[in-house]
Amino acid sequence: MNPTITAFKASPDRGRGLARDMRVRWALEEVGQPYDVRLVTFEEMKQPAHLALSPFGQIPTYEDGDLALFESGSIVFHIAQRHAALLPQDAAGRARAVTWMFAALSTVEPPLVERGMAGLLERDKPWFEQRQPMLEERARKVLRELSARLGEAEWLEGAFTAGDLMMAGVLFRSKPSGILNEFPNLAAYVARAEARPAFQRAFAAQLAVFQAASAAEGT
Amino acid sequence: MNPTITAFKASPDRGRGLARDMRVRWALEEVGQPYDVRLVTFEEMKQPAHLALSPFGQIPTYEDGDLALFESGSIVFHIAQRHAALLPQDAAGRARAVTWMFAALSTVEPPLVERGMAGLLERDKPWFEQRQPMLEERARKVLRELSARLGEAEWLEGAFTAGDLMMAGVLFRSKPSGILNEFPNLAAYVARAEARPAFQRAFAAQLAVFQAASAAEGT
Repeated sequence: MNPTITAFKASPDRGRGLARDMRVRWALEEVGQPYDVRLVTFEEMKQPAHLALSPFGQIPTYEDGDLALFESGSIVFHIAQRHAALLPQDAAGRARAVTWMFAALSTVEPPLVERGMAGLLERDKPWFEQRQPMLEERARKVLRELSARLGEAEWLEGAFTAGDLMMAGVLFRSKPSGILNEFPNLAAYVARAEARPAFQRAFAAQLAVFQAASAAEGT
Repeated sequence: MNPTITAFKASPDRGRGLARDMRVRWALEEVGQPYDVRLVTFEEMKQPAHLALSPFGQIPTYEDGDLALFESGSIVFHIAQRHAALLPQDAAGRARAVTWMFAALSTVEPPLVERGMAGLLERDKPWFEQRQPMLEERARKVLRELSARLGEAEWLEGAFTAGDLMMAGVLFRSKPSGILNEFPNLAAYVARAEARPAFQRAFAAQLAVFQAASAAEGT
């Protein structure tokens, strides 16, 4: 039996790979683990059956036999732990990779999401323009610091790890806004991530969901 | 040699345990691991020596021999992995505990911090009152969902784990704002966490830093 993940039936990103199932698909592709997908509507995500899996009503979830997980960070870590491709063999290397996973989700993603959400939900508000420099600076601060740390390295800690997967996955979501172009080494880092065959397979798989939904709507 | 963590030399919370070293101290106390503390000023946190440890210029960091970690989530996980007290022995139980750690940091903490930061930095802005209901609702949404999941249970997954430590640690930071009182089972959950001897030892240790700094200032 393959593990089953959930993803949006109709992703608001129109197949651009910005939903959080992308990270989990990518990790599964990196380790060569086939998986099944159950698509859920926004209505279904509020129902008890989904909330039992995902208390905060989100996607993705991950089910494998009796094990049910939520949170993309936790799912990617679980996948990484069970396969050699995404975590170093030595304890210190693993701890460093896990550190970057937490850094991606807990330090880098929040200011990027805050900036993105304001652009989405508050653009017509009278205060939008005035708050924008503060939000831009919060986002740029973490990107500047990450850029300084990465320097000219290919990945954050030598070989590609789940820490890079999560960090590049987080940065990838901000790519459409153009902010990454201010940090050429981060833009190049994300481009290297996107060039990985596993990323491309994951991207194609989530795009296919959008294309199928569009085709069904068109008929 | 004990591991060494960093903490604020002069915590802006005035010893209320709201800085992120609190979680790491608490985890170390839960597993009975003695530790040393190196206090850093805000100025020192921007210097190359600290940025080499903590690329985003934060506390806490964790050093143990050759291993250097940052991000409270990663440090707590590292501590939990090396001692039996904070993670179940079975793989599924461990994966669930890790899931709650990510949920605490990636889903619950950001809207609580966003609300807290607005109260701190935008209270005098003309838009503060108008944005407040939206920020309150984002914070209440995750608290409502967490409250529904916790129900009358003592901890999130049976016995206390690193997932509870991180979740209660995140909620504890919002306690001064009063929002937890709207969710009596979450307030009781945090109270249970605070009653743990390890929490109390960690709290006393960080409070002692503030008291020593105040006394030194007073002389």
